[in-house]
This record gives sequence, C-alpha cells and structure tokens, in this order.
Amino acid sequence: MNHEFYMDRALELAAHGLGFSSPNPAVGAVLVADGKVVGAGYHERAGAPHAEAVATREAGSAARGAVLYCTLEPCCHRTPEKRTPPCTDAIVAAGVRLVVVATADPNPHVSGRGIAVLRAAGIEVIVGVRHAEATRMNEPFFRFIRSGVPFVHLKTAQSLDGYVATSGGESKWITPSAARREVHALRARYDAVLVGAGTVRADNPALTVRDVEGRNPVRIVLTSSCDVPADAAVFDHAARTIVLTGETTPPDAIAALENVGATVIAVRRTTSGADSPAKLDPNEVLRALATNGLTSVLVEGGPGVATSFLAADAVDRVTVFIAPRLFGGGKRAFGDLGRSSLDDAPAYDAEWRSVDGCGVATWLIDPASVSGESDDIAPHAACVGECGAVAQEVR
Amino acid sequence: MNHEFYMDRALELAAHGLGFSSPNPAVGAVLVADGKVVGAGYHERAGAPHAEAVATREAGSAARGAVLYCTLEPCCHRTPEKRTPPCTDAIVAAGVRLVVVATADPNPHVSGRGIAVLRAAGIEVIVGVRHAEATRMNEPFFRFIRSGVPFVHLKTAQSLDGYVATSGGESKWITPSAARREVHALRARYDAVLVGAGTVRADNPALTVRDVEGRNPVRIVLTSSCDVPADAAVFDHAARTIVLTGETTPPDAIAALENVGATVIAVRRTTSGADSPAKLDPNEVLRALATNGLTSVLVEGGPGVATSFLAADAVDRVTVFIAPRLFGGGKRAFGDLGRSSLDDAPAYDAEWRSVDGCGVATWLIDPASVSGESDDIAPHAACVGECGAVAQEVR
Repeated sequence: MNHEFYMDRALELAAHGLGFSSPNPAVGAVLVADGKVVGAGYHERAGAPHAEAVATREAGSAARGAVLYCTLEPCCHRTPEKRTPPCTDAIVAAGVRLVVVATADPNPHVSGRGIAVLRAAGIEVIVGVRHAEATRMNEPFFRFIRSGVPFVHLKTAQSLDGYVATSGGESKWITPSAARREVHALRARYDAVLVGAGTVRADNPALTVRDVEGRNPVRIVLTSSCDVPADAAVFDHAARTIVLTGETTPPDAIAALENVGATVIAVRRTTSGADSPAKLDPNEVLRALATNGLTSVLVEGGPGVATSFLAADAVDRVTVFIAPRLFGGGKRAFGDLGRSSLDDAPAYDAEWRSVDGCGVATWLIDPASVSGESDDIAPHAACVGECGAVAQEVR
Repeated sequence: MNHEFYMDRALELAAHGLGFSSPNPAVGAVLVADGKVVGAGYHERAGAPHAEAVATREAGSAARGAVLYCTLEPCCHRTPEKRTPPCTDAIVAAGVRLVVVATADPNPHVSGRGIAVLRAAGIEVIVGVRHAEATRMNEPFFRFIRSGVPFVHLKTAQSLDGYVATSGGESKWITPSAARREVHALRARYDAVLVGAGTVRADNPALTVRDVEGRNPVRIVLTSSCDVPADAAVFDHAARTIVLTGETTPPDAIAALENVGATVIAVRRTTSGADSPAKLDPNEVLRALATNGLTSVLVEGGPGVATSFLAADAVDRVTVFIAPRLFGGGKRAFGDLGRSSLDDAPAYDAEWRSVDGCGVATWLIDPASVSGESDDIAPHAACVGECGAVAQEVR
C-alpha cells in the first residue's frame, strides 16, 4: 500500500479547510479498504465535525479493517468547550485496522495521547508520512497552540535591490499581477492582516481578498497616534478593522476611527530608540491580537513595521516577492536591524521559486517553533504518549 | 528522426569548447546515419578544425546520405586570416543529405550564406532546432560579432535586502560555496574578468579560476588613479592583468604597476557627475578591451563599477546571487541609476533558480542584441541568403 499516495489525497482535502478552520487546524482524512477510498473528509470550520469523523461516518461498515490516513493525530480529549467528541472513539468503534498519521498534534491536550489511545485499542499506528507537508500546512496552528502567540508571516514586495518604492515614490505595482494574486490567497489563510499607518496613508489598501476565492481576514492598522484618514479603504465595511494605537493617543482621534466602525485598542510603545519615532511594541501588538481571538497574522508592511517586527524577534515566517527591477534608490524594504556582522545576519533556510518572472523567497525564522509534536519524529517512527486528563479546550 | 535529441548531443559537445574557442563561438556537430552517430566533433580552439569538419572526417564514407546536426550555421567563407577551409565544402563533398542547424551565424560573412550554399548544392537544410539554447551558449560571440563591442556580463552577490557588505564592512562570504563555485565556472567562460580598484583594496581577490577546471581570464582592474597596491593578488602571475586608468594618472603610479607585470592603459573618464569622483567611461573601457582582443568580460564589481556600467547602458547580461540574509544596512549593491519612476525601472525578463539556498536571477538587458541571425527565425523555418565575397576574417 502506498501510504504517501493516500496521505497526499488527505492533504488535498485538508487544504479546503485552510482559512476556515481557525482556530482549529486544517485536517483531512481518507479511509482506504482493499485499495479503494471508502470514506473521506476534512474539517470545514471550528465546531464542524472533524475530518476523521466525517470519513468514518461516510465509510460506515466499510471502515472495518480499513486503513485511515490522517494529516494530523486524531484528537482524544473532551473538554467543556469542545464541541466534538474524541475522534479516537469513532476510529476504534469503526474497527479501523491501521491509522497512518502525518504528524502528531502539538496541542498539549493531544500530543501523542491520541496515538497512544489507538494503540491501546489494538490499532496499528504509523506516524510521520508527509510530515513536512502536514506541518507546513498548519504552521500557524502549531505555533499558536504551543506558545499562545499568534503566528506572524511577514510579506514584502521589493525591487531586486531592496526597495519598496522608487525615489519618485511609486510603489504600485512593483510585482506582477500573478504575485499579487498569491498575496490575496495568503490573506485568505490568515486570521488577520496587518499594516502600519504609513502604508494606509501612502497606498490606501483595502486589505481584502479579491483576486481569489476566500474570506477576508480581520484588518489591523498600527498607528501610534491614530493619524489615519477615517475615509481610508481599510475602514470600508468589507471586513472587521482593529486599530492598535499608543496609550497616549487623544480620545478625539480614537473617536474619529470608532465612528467609522473600527475597534481601537491601546497598546504599549517600545522603549528602545528614544529619539526615533515612537513605535508600538510588536509583542504587545501580538498579545492584543491573541486576546481578540486572532491566532495568525500576515504582516504586509510597510518597512517600518517590517523592521520593528523583525528587530523584536516577532516574526515566524518571511516571504519576499522580488521583482526583477533595479531602482538604484528609493524607499528601503528593511531598515536598521541592529546587525553589523555576517554572524548577526545568518543565512536563512530559504525556499526559492518564481512567479511570472518575480523571485519568491520564503523561510521560517525558527523552524523548531512550528514543527510537529517531536522534532525527532522520523518518517514511520513510533510516537508514544499517554492519554491523560485535559482541562482546557483547544481543538 | 528526433532532431532535438541529436541537437542536444551536438550542444553538449559544443559546450566543451566554451572558454577555449574565443574569439570563435563554441560549436558542436553530430553526423547521424540510420539512427547511429557516425561522426561527431566540436571546435576546440581558434585555429583548430571546425566541428563540422571533425564530424565529417570521422564519418568518412558513412557521411554519405547522413544527417548533420550543427549548433551553428556552417561557415562558407575564405579570408586571408581564416585558418580553416569553409565547412560547407566539406559537407557537400561528404554527401550529407540533410543539415539541421540550431541557429544561423550572425557573423556578417556567413549570415545565411552558409545555408544558401548547402541548399544550392541540393542539400536539405532545417534551421531553428534548439535555437534558444544555441543562442544562449554563444551570446558573447553573437554580441561581439555584430557590434565589435565586448559582451558584458555583470555579476553581483548581495544580501536579500541589497547589500554587498554589512555595516561592519564584512563582505566575505555572503553567498554559500556552491554559488562561489558557479562564479569560478563563469570566469572560465569569459575572455576577461573586471573589478574596480575599491574591490581590489577591500577584498584583494585573485580573480582566477580555482574551484572548477578552466583557464584563467585576463584580469582587468579599473582605477582612475592607479591607487592599488602593487602586491595585490591580481598582480600575481597566474594570469595576465591589465590596469585601465585615467589619462592624468601620474607616470610613477603607472610604473609601479608595470613593474609587477601589469599592462597599464589610459582611457577617458566620464564627463557626467562633476562633483562625484572621476570614473572611467565604461564604453571607453570596452573599446580598450576590444582593442586588446577581448570579446567578453565578466564584471564582478564593486558597486561603483556595477552602477557606472548599468548607467552607461554598457551591460548585456546581469546575474545576481541573492543570499537569504537580511543585513538591514551596509554597502549597497547598486547606486543611483538615475531612475525615479517604475517606467524608468522596467521588469527584466529574469530566470530564477536557487543554488544551495541562494537565489540566482539572470537576465539579458536587451535580448535582441544577442539573438541568432534573424530574430524571426522560427523553429524549422527556412533561412535564405547569398554567399557573397567577404573581406575580413572573423571566424
């Protein structure tokens, strides 16, 4: 039996839930008996049945003796807030013979216990098939569930020599339309999209999902002083908008934005850089997002915001769209990061590809922070754990 | 018969001549009879037999009725300086039935006439199989033979945000060793490699071919004042070194470099930028190279040289190695190019790939300048011309 083949089908199914399943992960499941798919499903949205439950229900009695492919370790817990029963119960009840899992669930309430429950019930379990792909798909969930800190994906678009605008101030459009469409697809996968006030004033982006199918993320605007026009596109009513501002912002400036429907929240400023413009502390910003139920955010700039998030070690993934243009001057994509030597600026483990002539580099700043349950899960290695009592709902 | 298959073999053979055939192009030829290769060859170096002659000689009587694959249109001319007889004579005499040509030869002494001679002799000719690959392989030759101006390949290595050195001055090594090995392979394909005096003073590169097999190019150092140390690595005796300097450089500064074996040549400075440091005019530099028999040059920096060559429209191909690092400051890879709008900085038709985590973008500034004889040669289209009298040796 080709485990990779069926796990790829399960991953394809899981992908349908991306952007909709949050705060839960996107999960897919495929049940195979005698080389035939007898059940399949994915997790559509929080509160909806889990993928494994959908697949076993569809299979009915055909699940007996079948092989179940899951992109994530099946859940095994009940908590007061959890709206769905443990998948391990359904799997055991269905009489599945073998469960193939792409990655263990880093959720501390599962974390190997789901696998242990299955094994205790006499079901064979294989862990690690398409581990990298499954982890990549749910890296925001993996990061948030472990740390409580929203996953931050910093995206920039620049000329090859590192500028986001020409010396004449032009910034639209540096990259080709196919690259911009990818950005819209990215937006649809994140709970929130975030820009600084300077970007709102300069580019007036709507920050909605338009070039692809998908739901709009919550829009976050950072402004230490609420100096953004109330008629900016981010204040249309296509999506919710949260303005994060400094604690000393005058009430009338706040009221002006609340009047157009924005939620305005005060957060602390950074203490560093006494004579530089006051900036909101990126880690305070992330706390405010988490408090508002947002587990992942796509940071779209501008350079000031990108630089402050990087300098604060508040970025998980970076994606840079590099247009094959040379500006020779203009507005720089990144400012001072406090790095003066090569050791300060180590090479990231970047993946490169191209989109319509545009180079795209993407990397995780700290791959360990979003890996599956154990960094040392080797393909098909056994994963052990204990199914203990759990106190709090997560998945 | 699969023309592409055999043309690929001919291109592989041709590649053996790269770096050695100059000022001639690298050419390969394969003779096929009844699905068997009966003769094959490539042009080893200027003065050595042409690829077609090698292949037909090897085939002997087996060439009769065979198909000849040539990566370049066979030559048809005799000139006082030319050391080899016309290949068209050998092909006709050998009784070849069909000649498949990747691209016509832009050499004005051939330029379709070779094809016309073959057709006049009753041989069928197909032109355009693997046209793009054959053109790419010999783009320096194609550029030089048409214009008399050396082909300029500008190569830079930078951080993702566009710096060639950190703010602390570190520039070695930004890119991984696999990328540096590619640069050595590039050097071996060019007649000359060129840097500015600042790069000699800062990095003290030897500019020789070390990490791969290949011959050393002539080393060119640009210095408006001959302010380079006579004990720099470029003045070792591993290869010839030419110093191009300003017309007002003091004789003792020139003598110091001549004493260590360098050839020192005075060239005009640019008139632009009255209060900027005097720079040598890139077009004058190229004239000096051509006068010295150098048909192609790999410009390796630093930023001042790269910028002046780009600003003077004196670059044919650019290759940028982009290390996945963010410096946030330092020495910029490119300076002011006089571009203030997006229209001034159009998107190049770049190819992207990655080498050991490093992104590599490469593009031609003006693809038409190095295309095969006719831009409108379609695959397998007919190419007509007349074999006229020629006055001057080129190939």
